[in-house]
Amino acid sequence: MNLMPNLMSLGLRVINNDLLILDQTLLPHQEIWIKVENVDHMIQIIKKLQVRGAPLIGVSAGLALALSASRGKSHAVLKEEALALRESRPTAVNLMIIIDRLLKLIEQKASVERMMAEAVDIFHEDVELCKKMGENGAALINDGDNILHHCNTGGLATAGIGTALGVIQTAHRQGKRIHVYVDETRPLLQGGRLTCYELEKMGISYTLICDNMAGHLMSLGKIQKVFVGADRIALNGDFANKIGTQSVATLAHYFNIPFYTVAPYTTVDPDCETGRDIPIEERKADEVRGVKGSFGEVIWSPSNAPVYNPAFDVTPGNIISGIVLNCGVYNRDQLRNGALRELFTNK
Amino acid sequence: MNLMPNLMSLGLRVINNDLLILDQTLLPHQEIWIKVENVDHMIQIIKKLQVRGAPLIGVSAGLALALSASRGKSHAVLKEEALALRESRPTAVNLMIIIDRLLKLIEQKASVERMMAEAVDIFHEDVELCKKMGENGAALINDGDNILHHCNTGGLATAGIGTALGVIQTAHRQGKRIHVYVDETRPLLQGGRLTCYELEKMGISYTLICDNMAGHLMSLGKIQKVFVGADRIALNGDFANKIGTQSVATLAHYFNIPFYTVAPYTTVDPDCETGRDIPIEERKADEVRGVKGSFGEVIWSPSNAPVYNPAFDVTPGNIISGIVLNCGVYNRDQLRNGALRELFTNK
Repeated sequence: MNLMPNLMSLGLRVINNDLLILDQTLLPHQEIWIKVENVDHMIQIIKKLQVRGAPLIGVSAGLALALSASRGKSHAVLKEEALALRESRPTAVNLMIIIDRLLKLIEQKASVERMMAEAVDIFHEDVELCKKMGENGAALINDGDNILHHCNTGGLATAGIGTALGVIQTAHRQGKRIHVYVDETRPLLQGGRLTCYELEKMGISYTLICDNMAGHLMSLGKIQKVFVGADRIALNGDFANKIGTQSVATLAHYFNIPFYTVAPYTTVDPDCETGRDIPIEERKADEVRGVKGSFGEVIWSPSNAPVYNPAFDVTPGNIISGIVLNCGVYNRDQLRNGALRELFTNK
Repeated sequence: MNLMPNLMSLGLRVINNDLLILDQTLLPHQEIWIKVENVDHMIQIIKKLQVRGAPLIGVSAGLALALSASRGKSHAVLKEEALALRESRPTAVNLMIIIDRLLKLIEQKASVERMMAEAVDIFHEDVELCKKMGENGAALINDGDNILHHCNTGGLATAGIGTALGVIQTAHRQGKRIHVYVDETRPLLQGGRLTCYELEKMGISYTLICDNMAGHLMSLGKIQKVFVGADRIALNGDFANKIGTQSVATLAHYFNIPFYTVAPYTTVDPDCETGRDIPIEERKADEVRGVKGSFGEVIWSPSNAPVYNPAFDVTPGNIISGIVLNCGVYNRDQLRNGALRELFTNK
């Protein structure tokens, strides 16, 4: 039997050929690791948001597929599994890109060793991408900055130190005195639950706020920079990210506060010309009627209140200051002039 | 013993000289009426937000003080009680104006009958003010409009049909087909709990959203008008309202969507030149760390997460379309030209 090397990250581990996922729906109160039984199980874990963050979803799915190969599945079955994984969440492009890399190997009838090596490479690439994004983004942060952050984009969203939160961590490690305002990020509270958890672990000073308080802080001059992640970036710089991002970006634009989205190049979708091409996933009504998690479950609205619950929104590239990728920072003018398209034509 | 006439509104009743307050912290799941024992009890009810909404707080406080007079309190004690009531919440000006009306009578050593009549007049005036605001505001609404609403401003916030929600109810009664998008209004969820409850009672079509989804709906062209209430309006048109209002107004301004605040003239503070003069109340950290109510109590963030929790923010008058008062609609140009100051000089 082929063994995958052990891997360790904040939210994902491979130990003795078992893929383990930290159940993020139970954080910050419980740290429970789920052993992934098979690809169907992985799909359920993705759909329930027990694993989340566009890069980490992709890395996890890739490892699950390679481990399925190591358990003797035929190439025909692996292809079916890959296609099912690829559709488990519709908005993040990383998942699709990573699955496509493995699909190519499956179609070439590659060996199990080759598939496992590819999935492990993807893990290590993600760690390296985070490091580069962190360095590129940290150069934009000044000593003393108060930084607004939306959703969770840290070690719980990637295999490495994260995207936007990786930038913040890198600036902190460089000795810059920073303070982070954490949007709680309704409805699923990734900020209140996960980003607070990560910032406490890192010892970075922070303040938790409700999403609707960010504009007030901006109007008081208390925010110097905004850093967020991205789930998919179109070639013109439009990008999809957690619901609420577009409001934060529009407010930052109005108050002349630099706003950056941070992502690996795999988040840029070369088949996506503008944000209009990005599908937006809608989720269940009860997520908005109340909250549910390891902390408990409550519904505060009338129990069948009609609800609209988009998981993401699209921020126009022409209102942001720039995009921080692993390969560099692209400002608004560069985005308008096709800098993202060049990433692909130069390859 | 002097008897006050019975009074009935959605959130307040006087029956047999007893003041009853509908406990709004328990809605929509339980309808429990609190019998107000004395002025100290009334102050606790205000501080715990069991009664809320700037006009209803003022009306309730006035009735509590008049009923205290009817129970034989000396003018000296009544004055102390009035001053304590006046300070029970710092942002809404209605409370101060109403208490000042009664304080004037106390200082004139007015009779119990006179004080009771004044408090009852204030109740009926509020009902009439709501009716006028409703008519003035409804004229701005077109058949088919989708309207965004923040916080709660209806029969649970006033003695009458409400301010912004009164406008919506009036348009609905006029036969205009409207749909309301309800901001849940973190942290205390007045939208998700109370506005949904009122809209269901009125049979008005609505959709509940998280606060951070409003900008997304605006960007999709799905919002035609925004109506909100106000806790205090400065002479230049700046106004304080529930936290999140300024973000909604800024987003509406950016997307060219008409935005109106609706209030009785008592919300305009003639001693307040601009929004900078309005104090902003900060509330407890646990309100942001989780939620608490009749529906249950959960904390989802790290249990001692540092929090910023302003109850209100200030929206600049120069980014809104206008202010709907009982005495008319004042557009941005009129506000800039001192229309609100004229309300007081003409009196």
